[in-house]
Amino acid sequence: MITESAPRTTVDLGDLHGSLSDPVLSSMTLLNELAGRFPKAVSFSAGRPYEEFYDPLQLHDHLERFRKYLEVERGLGPDRVRTALFQYGHTKGLLTDLLVRHLAVDEGVDALPESIVVTTGCQEAMILLLRALRTGDEDVILAPAPTYVGFLGAARLMDMPVLPVSEGAGGIDVEDLAVQIARARERGLRPRACYVVPDFANPSGLSMSLADRRRLLEVAEREDILVIEDNPYSLFNADGHRLPTLKSLDTTRRVVYVGSFAKTVFPGARVGYLVADQRVAGTDPGEGPLLADQLAKLKSMLTLNTSTVSQAVIGGKLLANDCSMARATEREAQVYRRNLAAVMAGLDRHFPAPDDGSRPRTTWNVPGGGMFAVLSLPFEADDAMLEYSASRFGVLWTPMRYFYPDGGGTRQIRLSFSVLTPAQIDEGLSRLAALVRDRTA
Amino acid sequence: MITESAPRTTVDLGDLHGSLSDPVLSSMTLLNELAGRFPKAVSFSAGRPYEEFYDPLQLHDHLERFRKYLEVERGLGPDRVRTALFQYGHTKGLLTDLLVRHLAVDEGVDALPESIVVTTGCQEAMILLLRALRTGDEDVILAPAPTYVGFLGAARLMDMPVLPVSEGAGGIDVEDLAVQIARARERGLRPRACYVVPDFANPSGLSMSLADRRRLLEVAEREDILVIEDNPYSLFNADGHRLPTLKSLDTTRRVVYVGSFAKTVFPGARVGYLVADQRVAGTDPGEGPLLADQLAKLKSMLTLNTSTVSQAVIGGKLLANDCSMARATEREAQVYRRNLAAVMAGLDRHFPAPDDGSRPRTTWNVPGGGMFAVLSLPFEADDAMLEYSASRFGVLWTPMRYFYPDGGGTRQIRLSFSVLTPAQIDEGLSRLAALVRDRTA
Repeated sequence: MITESAPRTTVDLGDLHGSLSDPVLSSMTLLNELAGRFPKAVSFSAGRPYEEFYDPLQLHDHLERFRKYLEVERGLGPDRVRTALFQYGHTKGLLTDLLVRHLAVDEGVDALPESIVVTTGCQEAMILLLRALRTGDEDVILAPAPTYVGFLGAARLMDMPVLPVSEGAGGIDVEDLAVQIARARERGLRPRACYVVPDFANPSGLSMSLADRRRLLEVAEREDILVIEDNPYSLFNADGHRLPTLKSLDTTRRVVYVGSFAKTVFPGARVGYLVADQRVAGTDPGEGPLLADQLAKLKSMLTLNTSTVSQAVIGGKLLANDCSMARATEREAQVYRRNLAAVMAGLDRHFPAPDDGSRPRTTWNVPGGGMFAVLSLPFEADDAMLEYSASRFGVLWTPMRYFYPDGGGTRQIRLSFSVLTPAQIDEGLSRLAALVRDRTA
Repeated sequence: MITESAPRTTVDLGDLHGSLSDPVLSSMTLLNELAGRFPKAVSFSAGRPYEEFYDPLQLHDHLERFRKYLEVERGLGPDRVRTALFQYGHTKGLLTDLLVRHLAVDEGVDALPESIVVTTGCQEAMILLLRALRTGDEDVILAPAPTYVGFLGAARLMDMPVLPVSEGAGGIDVEDLAVQIARARERGLRPRACYVVPDFANPSGLSMSLADRRRLLEVAEREDILVIEDNPYSLFNADGHRLPTLKSLDTTRRVVYVGSFAKTVFPGARVGYLVADQRVAGTDPGEGPLLADQLAKLKSMLTLNTSTVSQAVIGGKLLANDCSMARATEREAQVYRRNLAAVMAGLDRHFPAPDDGSRPRTTWNVPGGGMFAVLSLPFEADDAMLEYSASRFGVLWTPMRYFYPDGGGTRQIRLSFSVLTPAQIDEGLSRLAALVRDRTA
């Protein structure tokens, strides 16, 4: 591939940005490598959405529906539709009107259209927020440990330290958040925001109670920090019962809401959005008054606009469902409910409580929805164990330690069940039980 | 829109990243505002491609052609095509094979497929490079002044200082590049790369001679810096004569090549790419050995993958033209040639040389292609003059000072002519001549 004879420019890894030497950015590399080496392994490691309902024909339908919406409902006519679909686009995006409707219908959020920025996946939304909030080395973000690896990676890219907050059975420990904010300030740091996934978090599967949601907002208000609410999973509850988003409880505009279409439509499109209705003081008269306007300025130098074609496809899907993603994802939600039930039933079956009444050595949490559960094992679950599990027992999972940048979760694993059938889940848990017997014999 | 009665979280602009207070990020705001306020003005300010050949039906054709290519030519079959189009995608993208063919056909570049990363527009390519090359405050990039404002903005976002190199009639002054590198090192700085648009640069319209291209590579080799070659315009030459890209002359892999489909297909898709075949020393065995692999790691935390739908549309266009963008853009190239000729003829007509043989007070350069020319006026061309020009004479242009972050170009304006008709060009130049008469009367 590379001919060794030619002279070649070489760069040392040490002369590249520090994030490239950080394990956070390569944590998923081993998983991908093992999935390639052991294609017959049952994989509890893929965080992908269910794909059996995808069909390339849908892309054409969505695209055409959105084109008609622009031409007729929005009254642009053919020439301006052509400009909207082909040219450099408005930085905030083509979907803000539809997103206002979606947020009202599905989330009970009354969003200002000008407070919305459509982003290249919610990953770009995180990058924009992290970039905006970092003015110097004293700025820090708080987040529960464990935390979504995409957020940790985004923070590493933007040189923003993430201070861990402890987590209980109901997600982030709000008391500990206040403690960590105080400690950070004692160290001369400036906490800017707290990142949280209140519903069926990745990786923990945990959800915050209504009382904790209110207390989180109170702490944020008292401590004058922002809350970044990331909500990719809330529609996939197990029992049809949904708690209000932080944004819908947010009377003082403390919350920057980050939404995703990766799980509700499809990930490849890379369409997400943020709602940032905070006021920014000190801007020029010509600029918009909202944090969203400043984030859009950053976006204009990062990706310019979110792909117009992708926006058209997502917009078509919104239009086909009266802007209700709850309605659009009824079939997928059924699959995830079915799979969560299969995981819980399978864990009960394959990891029965000890006959002698002693404490079980393998335990798990019982999420109220989402795509993830966490299993606590009686031994270290590290990369070596993962490779042993894949090669000897044909089952893949994700070490929870990947999600604790400062250590933790060493005996825990994340089980993702979004792309599996109940039969695969049962087979996978059977293999996992064999691994546990092998390691504890 | 925002009710003033509700309590509201406020953030001070001074508590947001410094780039948000930098004029570079808002330089285009006034232009957009004036274009909105004076819709009948002839605009020489829009850097957009010609759009009369765009048709939404093309999106469906391209998408379908690319789907068939994946299914049949690449042999993926329907299920893996579905995964490729809908799921999280390979970070380096779906188009690397087609881009190898395109680079061979159009650019005489023999690229390793694994050295290519498809990016969310060439803007993301710049961001990735700037992020990778910044390890600390001592790292700097060099670029000719004036420089493309998107590069300056990307550098500002990534906290990377851009040191100006002077420009002559043939683009970057290679001697001055060596001088500036030496000066930077004397100041304790570490020059990492030089950014350059060798063909029909934005904003200057200038092109480098073949001799200068070779000398630039020699200086880069001697000084051990990378060259970032940004090539959005080279197909749009006025006379059918093309000089080789830096990358095609690059025997030692000094050049990171950045390609764009914004002008050759359409900008809204946000598809670009980079070729980074430099070796990286000190990486883990599991990682790829190329700079492209490290840039892909950064991308995995920035946008994850480039929109699959956008890639499919661009891929379909490549396939429809045997991967030759020169062939795909023949009609557009004709339009840009026609318009460049109209601008040059119009300037001769509307700004005739003085009868008395004295030196003309308004002068311009004569680009060999592209979308831009530069006019030097006998008075300051600042924002106030731009507003005067728009409101009193109905003609918009771009102050060249926007492209000089450290000062310069104060009496120069950029004329973009990509979206105009010859009649509009003539009318616009007539109005411009009226402005000049008014200001020099």
